[in-house]
Amino acid sequence: MECPSSFEPRFEAFSKIGSTGDGGVDRVEGSEANAKARHQVVAWMSELGFEVRIDGIGNIYGLLALVGADAPWIMTGSHIDSQPLGGRFDGAYGVIAGIDAAAAVRDRLAASGQKAQANLAVVAWAGEEGARFKPFLGSRVFTGVRSFEEALSGTDVEGRTAREVLGAIGFLGTDDPPPRPAAYVELHVECGSHLEQQGYRLGIFTRWWGAHKLDIEFSGETAHTGPTPMAKRKDALFAAAQIITGIRHLADAAPVGDLHTSVGKLVVVPNSPNVVPCLATANVELRSVKPDVLTASRDRLMELVAFAAATARVTYRIVRDDLRIPGTFDERLGSLARNAAKAIGFDPIDAETLPGHDAIMLAAICPTLMLTVPSRDGLCHHPLEWTDPEDLKLGVAWLGTVLDRLVVNGLEGAT
Amino acid sequence: MECPSSFEPRFEAFSKIGSTGDGGVDRVEGSEANAKARHQVVAWMSELGFEVRIDGIGNIYGLLALVGADAPWIMTGSHIDSQPLGGRFDGAYGVIAGIDAAAAVRDRLAASGQKAQANLAVVAWAGEEGARFKPFLGSRVFTGVRSFEEALSGTDVEGRTAREVLGAIGFLGTDDPPPRPAAYVELHVECGSHLEQQGYRLGIFTRWWGAHKLDIEFSGETAHTGPTPMAKRKDALFAAAQIITGIRHLADAAPVGDLHTSVGKLVVVPNSPNVVPCLATANVELRSVKPDVLTASRDRLMELVAFAAATARVTYRIVRDDLRIPGTFDERLGSLARNAAKAIGFDPIDAETLPGHDAIMLAAICPTLMLTVPSRDGLCHHPLEWTDPEDLKLGVAWLGTVLDRLVVNGLEGAT
Repeated sequence: MECPSSFEPRFEAFSKIGSTGDGGVDRVEGSEANAKARHQVVAWMSELGFEVRIDGIGNIYGLLALVGADAPWIMTGSHIDSQPLGGRFDGAYGVIAGIDAAAAVRDRLAASGQKAQANLAVVAWAGEEGARFKPFLGSRVFTGVRSFEEALSGTDVEGRTAREVLGAIGFLGTDDPPPRPAAYVELHVECGSHLEQQGYRLGIFTRWWGAHKLDIEFSGETAHTGPTPMAKRKDALFAAAQIITGIRHLADAAPVGDLHTSVGKLVVVPNSPNVVPCLATANVELRSVKPDVLTASRDRLMELVAFAAATARVTYRIVRDDLRIPGTFDERLGSLARNAAKAIGFDPIDAETLPGHDAIMLAAICPTLMLTVPSRDGLCHHPLEWTDPEDLKLGVAWLGTVLDRLVVNGLEGAT
Repeated sequence: MECPSSFEPRFEAFSKIGSTGDGGVDRVEGSEANAKARHQVVAWMSELGFEVRIDGIGNIYGLLALVGADAPWIMTGSHIDSQPLGGRFDGAYGVIAGIDAAAAVRDRLAASGQKAQANLAVVAWAGEEGARFKPFLGSRVFTGVRSFEEALSGTDVEGRTAREVLGAIGFLGTDDPPPRPAAYVELHVECGSHLEQQGYRLGIFTRWWGAHKLDIEFSGETAHTGPTPMAKRKDALFAAAQIITGIRHLADAAPVGDLHTSVGKLVVVPNSPNVVPCLATANVELRSVKPDVLTASRDRLMELVAFAAATARVTYRIVRDDLRIPGTFDERLGSLARNAAKAIGFDPIDAETLPGHDAIMLAAICPTLMLTVPSRDGLCHHPLEWTDPEDLKLGVAWLGTVLDRLVVNGLEGAT
């Protein structure tokens, strides 16, 4: 197949949307920049002849019915929302690359007259990052883990629902439901340093790390920080702080790479000088590729929470308790990707994804593949997140080759 | 003197302004409720014949020139802003009581034909709580600790300046400067439990606790909480959490009542799940009545900060470093207050104030007295903050008696 030629200028232009001026972007779900990015994706899909559909949770689909709507659909894509101080590659790369690669496959088939066995769809999933609403907003609804109603009624910190926010930017779609995928392929920068350290330009994610994600709310009582005797305080922030340090020590004490822990978000109420905080809600993450490590660390966390609450004289409540079980991507698609890489002259390395991706949601409903290219220094969710432009182009070519094989030979026939 | 009769209904009506429905109020500086409270104070002062002035930092003065503008001025008052989840007594009590007591003194003099030696002024200081701008916003400008320009250009968390906020509610005054006080008397609920525990209904604050208040900013780097190896993280929140637990242990290890410590406010950036926080700013308070304890705890804090920053691989900056030195209120005024209490049939107890008050700012420029009445369970900055209505009335009568003696006999002659 031909190398796609329009990927680079599109990706450059896209990186300017919501630019934070330091290399990064701020395209939090439903923000003005996110709306602009969405309109850009719709415009490119339309220009390139995709049929565009927006569903009721704001996912954007670009359809190329190469065979006919009843034939199997091969789906590729990723997300275009970002963290508030996010990088330009995370998510956006897979969407822009998908548009380019899918259009290139369609064009090659048209030029060669070769017959397709499957259709192609490119998707931009809504709210993957969870920076505003619960993560995997769009892909969780698409895969049936969450209902439209449940997802739409979720609120941001200001109490606005996803329904309001998506409605306000005009992306609460009412189009016909999109086709179900026979297979899903997602291209994403590694957000890790395995490829770089091992000296590979292409990687296949064979496994994903599991994660326990818990929102733990500590409830104490407001009091004046001056006169209130220390022994009478019911300090919710003191309890939360013990969890932050406690789970860090838990990860530091584990063998390197066995367990990653963090509190990325902490909401304190009333969060005012001179007032003992009455509420502190910590977003706790425990991540591992080993199910037994995950289970043990969760047990230890619960001990820490009970101890912290007791010493701070507060109560606690587990507000959210999501478990992503570690898992493996489709082996046959992995083998196809390995062959496709060799066909364009490269040898890919097997890798694991530590962050979650929409692909992990999709893996529950169809054979799923994740392709990856190196992240410099493993940086991710950071303005300096960076992937070499040559690696980006190579990834697009690889994705195109994989899609081409799937479309031409069908899911069963492709190798 | 006669007991004031209009205090109770006024205080009841005032408590409804910004009511949070659970007994407390939310009248944060410059809020809609704060503006409403300010208009109510201005209305009552005007109705009762005070000359009302608003200065350039939003302080409200009610003047009764009993003798003539050149005679000494006795000033009383407190503040009407509150914490976001504050109580109805903190501050508001002293302002409403001051209006009532001052008007009663003026009326008694008029009825008796007795000659006054001094004038009376009641003041509602702007932004005492520091819930939005730096604390003691109005009294720090009045006492010259801070310039108008410096105070007005201070910003809230949304980046709005005090100038904008006060301007928006119409309280950026341009009236003639108010008179300087020859003495200042503030009546305030105890916000502590000494009176209650010792069984006294009236108290004289003879000393105030000192406080080191520091804003400590930790700077790390954003990174994805999934893949980033623990050893590579630069986690600003992890550093801040170590300070929160560290200073708590510091206070717990000190003899009871020697040292109070807290972090009431913690700002985390970007504060998003999946992202290692790059910034965390902790509002740290160290309080003691003993100067050497304050100094030693500050030294220990600085060691903790350096250690926390090193273990979290972040840098730090002390953004604010305010020291309130412990001090004593005017002894002659204290003696006068003791005599005045006895004249109305009560014996007051000496006490210390642990929270800061506008009176502590005023003590730097004139003889200053603080009168207090019991807080149930010592609760303060809490919706359930409570003082018995009979104690409130008794405090108003006591304040009136003190003001009466100062006005009739002059600052030098009053005993």
